[in-house]
Amino acid sequence: MRRPYSYLTKIESSGGAAITCKNKLETIDEENLKEVSSQIRQAFVPDSTSANVLGMDWSKRPGQSEAPSFVNDFGDQPVADSESYIVVHGAGSFGHFQASKSGVHKGGLSRPLVKAGFVATRISVTSLNLEIVRALAREGIPSIGMSPFSCGWSTCQRNMTEADISMVIKAIDAGFIPVLHGDAVLDTLQECTILSGDVIIRHLAAELKPEFVVFLTDVLGVYDRPPVEPGAVLIREIAVREDGSWSVVKPKLEDTSKPVEFTVAAHDTTGGMVTKITEAAMIAKLGIDVYITKAGTDHSVKALSGFLKGGIPDDWLGTAIRYMS
Amino acid sequence: MRRPYSYLTKIESSGGAAITCKNKLETIDEENLKEVSSQIRQAFVPDSTSANVLGMDWSKRPGQSEAPSFVNDFGDQPVADSESYIVVHGAGSFGHFQASKSGVHKGGLSRPLVKAGFVATRISVTSLNLEIVRALAREGIPSIGMSPFSCGWSTCQRNMTEADISMVIKAIDAGFIPVLHGDAVLDTLQECTILSGDVIIRHLAAELKPEFVVFLTDVLGVYDRPPVEPGAVLIREIAVREDGSWSVVKPKLEDTSKPVEFTVAAHDTTGGMVTKITEAAMIAKLGIDVYITKAGTDHSVKALSGFLKGGIPDDWLGTAIRYMS
Repeated sequence: MRRPYSYLTKIESSGGAAITCKNKLETIDEENLKEVSSQIRQAFVPDSTSANVLGMDWSKRPGQSEAPSFVNDFGDQPVADSESYIVVHGAGSFGHFQASKSGVHKGGLSRPLVKAGFVATRISVTSLNLEIVRALAREGIPSIGMSPFSCGWSTCQRNMTEADISMVIKAIDAGFIPVLHGDAVLDTLQECTILSGDVIIRHLAAELKPEFVVFLTDVLGVYDRPPVEPGAVLIREIAVREDGSWSVVKPKLEDTSKPVEFTVAAHDTTGGMVTKITEAAMIAKLGIDVYITKAGTDHSVKALSGFLKGGIPDDWLGTAIRYMS
Repeated sequence: MRRPYSYLTKIESSGGAAITCKNKLETIDEENLKEVSSQIRQAFVPDSTSANVLGMDWSKRPGQSEAPSFVNDFGDQPVADSESYIVVHGAGSFGHFQASKSGVHKGGLSRPLVKAGFVATRISVTSLNLEIVRALAREGIPSIGMSPFSCGWSTCQRNMTEADISMVIKAIDAGFIPVLHGDAVLDTLQECTILSGDVIIRHLAAELKPEFVVFLTDVLGVYDRPPVEPGAVLIREIAVREDGSWSVVKPKLEDTSKPVEFTVAAHDTTGGMVTKITEAAMIAKLGIDVYITKAGTDHSVKALSGFLKGGIPDDWLGTAIRYMS
């Protein structure tokens, strides 16, 4: 039976990294990753607890020569029904160095540096993908890594053109959680480029029409200025109109004459928060709620579990971006 | 320009593992892997030496916080022409434990153990794939990991049905070396199964018609009995006929009344050497020479570089399986 595609989760790891250590080359924030994975498990299998999890990563642990023993604990009862979920993650401190050093996004595979950078970028982002898949599997989530490049996705002048999502749908229908990532891909005009996690999640949202999309990041949401600045105000709700334009509806910002310097993180190299809101607004325009919130908090648990669908309680801290007709 | 698909290399790592440590869970034989990668580099870029290699794995090395510095050594001259290559590897001590423990090959994703085993198998084989891609990239080979599952390949009652190779072709045409692997895949009849490296390489050979296929293993080739037994004779040449049947043409075996107990390794759990020869014979039947030889030797260098196309010298040790009309 075809399940409805209820959820799409984007783990933000660009700039304001939720699961990688900012400014530290290829370093995962293990604690945050574990917490995020545990929260996704709670949303995916609502009645699960950390005590009854049957891990699906049977790989050797560092320093051990044997596989984990819980392999013998699986019963023979049918797999319990679970929600449909897709996880998309950015690159954070993985891939970014390799891509920017070589200019993969600008194309030109005949240049040795670009070609090598393409290979190096894919190695870096697929190794992050593997670690995230493993972390989710350790929480008993049937996660399946799927690289956009291998899926055959490509772009034309950096716009996503070929992206057959049939394999993603098949994986979901088989009860798995596809885990996709920003990737280096082929481009029909400029030979190659970087396909960002943001663009991937927008494409998937448009095709699959999930109930909602969650962006997990390392601050509570979108602020009216860099959150480290004194007096920074968390934007609670943004309304998106038919034409794609958007405005802050909550809280009422006092000084509307001053241009709002939206940001989630000071070092967001992928275009800052206006880009992020623009991406989120394109999803919201389809009638799909987007929740931006801090990974590993009560607020992200609520967002991931679908608790916000009925209405956003006053004590929920995050930014909801919704269509307003 | 579309290059001819000159080579297909299968790195044997099932049972008689060329690059993983036999009987040691998820352990790579780093020295062998480096040697195999170096030999593939010599075949891929004939005028390259280990001194002028520009590595394409820019990931952090263990114990270091910085990326390798050779990133700055890339010149701006166009990428040199190179041969077309595909690498397919088996699972060896990766994936096998997870797959056999859960019975993924027998299907049945509604059983929790099978579903978990599917996830665990993919984690294990993709982590081996990543390590092989990295080893090749360190030798300056533009290697690109491509998982059959993500490529959308699936089976019907364990026979390969859907396997669109267009993305593999695009990757080769862009100058990359696709690195594929045995994988857990979806099956339209039994829900899931294991797609072996052997079946993948046969499918690719049939579609791409390479000049030759090399099987790299951990013994010199096919023997008339387990190679550890005294008096074991290396089979030098096998002729395959139109109807797919095959016979040993060199050396002349003395005792032809005794059934030949072909084997490459005593612990080959994937069906032993008869299965292997049968797979190779199906490729040879297409008019494509198959060379089975020991990884990391002068013999594998000759096989990989195309040296055997003109004829097999007497001092080449390995098994050639060829079509004989």
